[in-house]
Amino acid sequence: MTRTVDLNADMGESFGAWTMGDDKALLRVVSSANVACGFHAGDPDVMAATMAEAAGNGVGIGAHPGFRDLQGFGRHRMQVPAESLANAIRYQIGAAQAMARAAGAELRHLKLHGALANMASEDEALARLCYDAALSVAPELIVMVLAGTAQERAARGLGCLWAGEIFADRAYNDDATLVDRRLPGAVLHDAAEVGPRIRQMLEEEAIITASGKRLPAAIDTICLHGDTPAAVDLARALRRELEDAGIAIRPVTGRRD
Amino acid sequence: MTRTVDLNADMGESFGAWTMGDDKALLRVVSSANVACGFHAGDPDVMAATMAEAAGNGVGIGAHPGFRDLQGFGRHRMQVPAESLANAIRYQIGAAQAMARAAGAELRHLKLHGALANMASEDEALARLCYDAALSVAPELIVMVLAGTAQERAARGLGCLWAGEIFADRAYNDDATLVDRRLPGAVLHDAAEVGPRIRQMLEEEAIITASGKRLPAAIDTICLHGDTPAAVDLARALRRELEDAGIAIRPVTGRRD
Amino acid sequence: MTRTVDLNADMGESFGAWTMGDDKALLRVVSSANVACGFHAGDPDVMAATMAEAAGNGVGIGAHPGFRDLQGFGRHRMQVPAESLANAIRYQIGAAQAMARAAGAELRHLKLHGALANMASEDEALARLCYDAALSVAPELIVMVLAGTAQERAARGLGCLWAGEIFADRAYNDDATLVDRRLPGAVLHDAAEVGPRIRQMLEEEAIITASGKRLPAAIDTICLHGDTPAAVDLARALRRELEDAGIAIRPVTGRRD
Amino acid sequence: MTRTVDLNADMGESFGAWTMGDDKALLRVVSSANVACGFHAGDPDVMAATMAEAAGNGVGIGAHPGFRDLQGFGRHRMQVPAESLANAIRYQIGAAQAMARAAGAELRHLKLHGALANMASEDEALARLCYDAALSVAPELIVMVLAGTAQERAARGLGCLWAGEIFADRAYNDDATLVDRRLPGAVLHDAAEVGPRIRQMLEEEAIITASGKRLPAAIDTICLHGDTPAAVDLARALRRELEDAGIAIRPVTGRRD
Repeated sequence: MTRTVDLNADMGESFGAWTMGDDKALLRVVSSANVACGFHAGDPDVMAATMAEAAGNGVGIGAHPGFRDLQGFGRHRMQVPAESLANAIRYQIGAAQAMARAAGAELRHLKLHGALANMASEDEALARLCYDAALSVAPELIVMVLAGTAQERAARGLGCLWAGEIFADRAYNDDATLVDRRLPGAVLHDAAEVGPRIRQMLEEEAIITASGKRLPAAIDTICLHGDTPAAVDLARALRRELEDAGIAIRPVTGRRD
Repeated sequence: MTRTVDLNADMGESFGAWTMGDDKALLRVVSSANVACGFHAGDPDVMAATMAEAAGNGVGIGAHPGFRDLQGFGRHRMQVPAESLANAIRYQIGAAQAMARAAGAELRHLKLHGALANMASEDEALARLCYDAALSVAPELIVMVLAGTAQERAARGLGCLWAGEIFADRAYNDDATLVDRRLPGAVLHDAAEVGPRIRQMLEEEAIITASGKRLPAAIDTICLHGDTPAAVDLARALRRELEDAGIAIRPVTGRRD
Repeated sequence: MTRTVDLNADMGESFGAWTMGDDKALLRVVSSANVACGFHAGDPDVMAATMAEAAGNGVGIGAHPGFRDLQGFGRHRMQVPAESLANAIRYQIGAAQAMARAAGAELRHLKLHGALANMASEDEALARLCYDAALSVAPELIVMVLAGTAQERAARGLGCLWAGEIFADRAYNDDATLVDRRLPGAVLHDAAEVGPRIRQMLEEEAIITASGKRLPAAIDTICLHGDTPAAVDLARALRRELEDAGIAIRPVTGRRD
Repeated sequence: MTRTVDLNADMGESFGAWTMGDDKALLRVVSSANVACGFHAGDPDVMAATMAEAAGNGVGIGAHPGFRDLQGFGRHRMQVPAESLANAIRYQIGAAQAMARAAGAELRHLKLHGALANMASEDEALARLCYDAALSVAPELIVMVLAGTAQERAARGLGCLWAGEIFADRAYNDDATLVDRRLPGAVLHDAAEVGPRIRQMLEEEAIITASGKRLPAAIDTICLHGDTPAAVDLARALRRELEDAGIAIRPVTGRRD
């Protein structure tokens, strides 16, 4: 049986007259697109264009909801009442489903954005609240979780379809958290390093930390970035490396346990 | 066979900390609720609460999309590019579907709001664009149209399910347009007048104009208001009048022709 | 010399088609109006109308800036970068100055709103950041501070004009914080109780806590509410009580120390 | 006496995480910056950064207000009630004044943006409404008007300080309107053509139309663009051409007649 893995990236983060990222290029590399839903980025036109392009490339479409904070790009932590947050998730999921349907596709997965994702990776109850809200609207959604965090525990607890995610270009601490961006080596830029490292993690089914420790993990999808030409190059190189190793790149499928 | 008709009203027009209308009272009178979708009024919390209450009362739930203009309550005409308007409709319909699903209900109908509705009643192409966009997301939606306007022609042209609407409390000109609000007698306040007038229109299957002319019309639903206590009283009186005349009040069903 | 005090209330909290509070009634009771600046409530039209009415009543006009969070009414805590928060304050102050000028008046004071005010009452650096930003735009602004909190310490540290504020209708703990709203007696509703209590605090120049303890305090202004008819009645009764005791109600003047 | 002219460009059109234009480069070419005020583009942080950079370069700072339409970038025509539009202008002017003051500078001029500017160039009453609103807040503001349009007539009628503007890179019809963008030759890209053409217009104090006709005009400022590297190059070339011809580039000063 062929080993497969998904490559995902955040997309559709333009807004109105403002462009962000090279979605066209990235949609030829990834197999899943996390599309912003209009609260922190994206608007109905951007969603329509991004999803049409994704569908045309056979890329799986996911919702990427965030806080209602356009100026802050959903990066500021907000203390929103639980039920209000749940409704905001439902609303964004529904909007994304509609835009996918109009593009002749369907919404396959969910990935939280920005400060909301960070908070959910630390707080299982919050993650559960968000996932549960999304599933109340779309029960078959595959929930992408940051492997080894409270997000994963929440998805397992709910018994829903989920997929474990690691970052292609970030170094890990021994407790599965990311190395602080401000430290040297926290962000990896070299394709010659990133490719073999990810391949090895897939083979060992474990996150390999900066110190060399192995943390067994469900690695179903790998997060890429497209905000710079170098990032797109790195994404391309990783895809080639994985395909050369006989690993097929496929839209994410969920596991349930 | 019993004659039936639908009573509809705009609802869910509160936003955040601001309340508008007496939805709870009105939801005990009408059979269809047109719920604002967050662009000109409403937010995910208001939508959730309104739809839960509607579902609990057996009231049919509809989407009431408008221009993205919160300060102007969707009442200012905007020149939005056609495809952008279509996407804005799709987005709002999807959000409304999701909120309805989470409330254990489903979205049954569509009614345009404010300046967008006014423009669509004058411009068949615009109406068609909006309805077509909504149907691309929800093909079985019943489109509520202002009887005798470009809205009706657009719905007929599309071959979709639709329902003809008249206003309970507005006088009509002989060309089926509404008498200008600034003219005396344009808005009717007296339940003793409104009730018999609507009953007669239903019996004759025609709009009866201010001059007494009969304009044959498909009258499937009657628009009520709930912005003042007097409006709610008028709505209650009309319902009683119709029921006393053996006309059953039921959520709107569409016709197709 | 006559003892004077200021009565202040939050106003201009309507938005677009949505009304909040009975500003007209309250503007006949208070001597200073804290006007929302469009980020959490208020819009240019509401600001213009509120300030014109205030100016016509001889009521001092203040800016009441908050977080950019219309749906949450500025009540959700947000982690906004310091410089970004400072700029948001400057922007709102400038907008308020312009609207005051167009109303033939001038901006006299500043009072922080909602979650931002709560955070600033606990965090002197944050309060200082906000006040400093406001003063960079309007150096002669009088900063209203919650007496005895980090807000007061920040204003004293800056050497700017400031005025100490207490609540008319809230009980105080012995550490000058407010008694939790959920506890019995936290909110006072009885004019016969509120009037003499405030008068006594003014005479003793001290906050009198629920346990009867005296906390010496600079009491320059008293915060009233207008969200319910009962609140407006309470405000009127307090004004009468103070005037009967020979205390003149005047727009706030600042102290500097 | 040395002939002087102003070069202006729209700036500060980034928003939150989204960047637009190369303001840094353009601020080394122009003498006046039209800064977006947060309604159609710009936010308090962008305004602060843009104005600080402008002040550091000795570039005059102006307000560039537009419709409240972030997604549409202020490019969609909106039918806003007159008094509401006036208040929106006042609000934006005040915000811009505050941000300029905090940057150690002052607001010198006003230029309308997008659809609002287009509407004002066709409708003298609308232009007058906007300018009058701005002047009610900042009486010494210099109003930049499109030479020969209803904007100019409105400014003359008000007796305020104003400055006539032409476009560096657009061809003119014989009635002083711009040649439709879709026609060949409507937009000029060649510095070797643009420079001499503008120099000649300045010398002849007239707009030279595509057909060669001379339309006498008050040419005080020339509009440049910075949205592409080529546009910035064109701006640089024009500045060099004018300086080589002994024309000094200075922040706009108004005329009054």
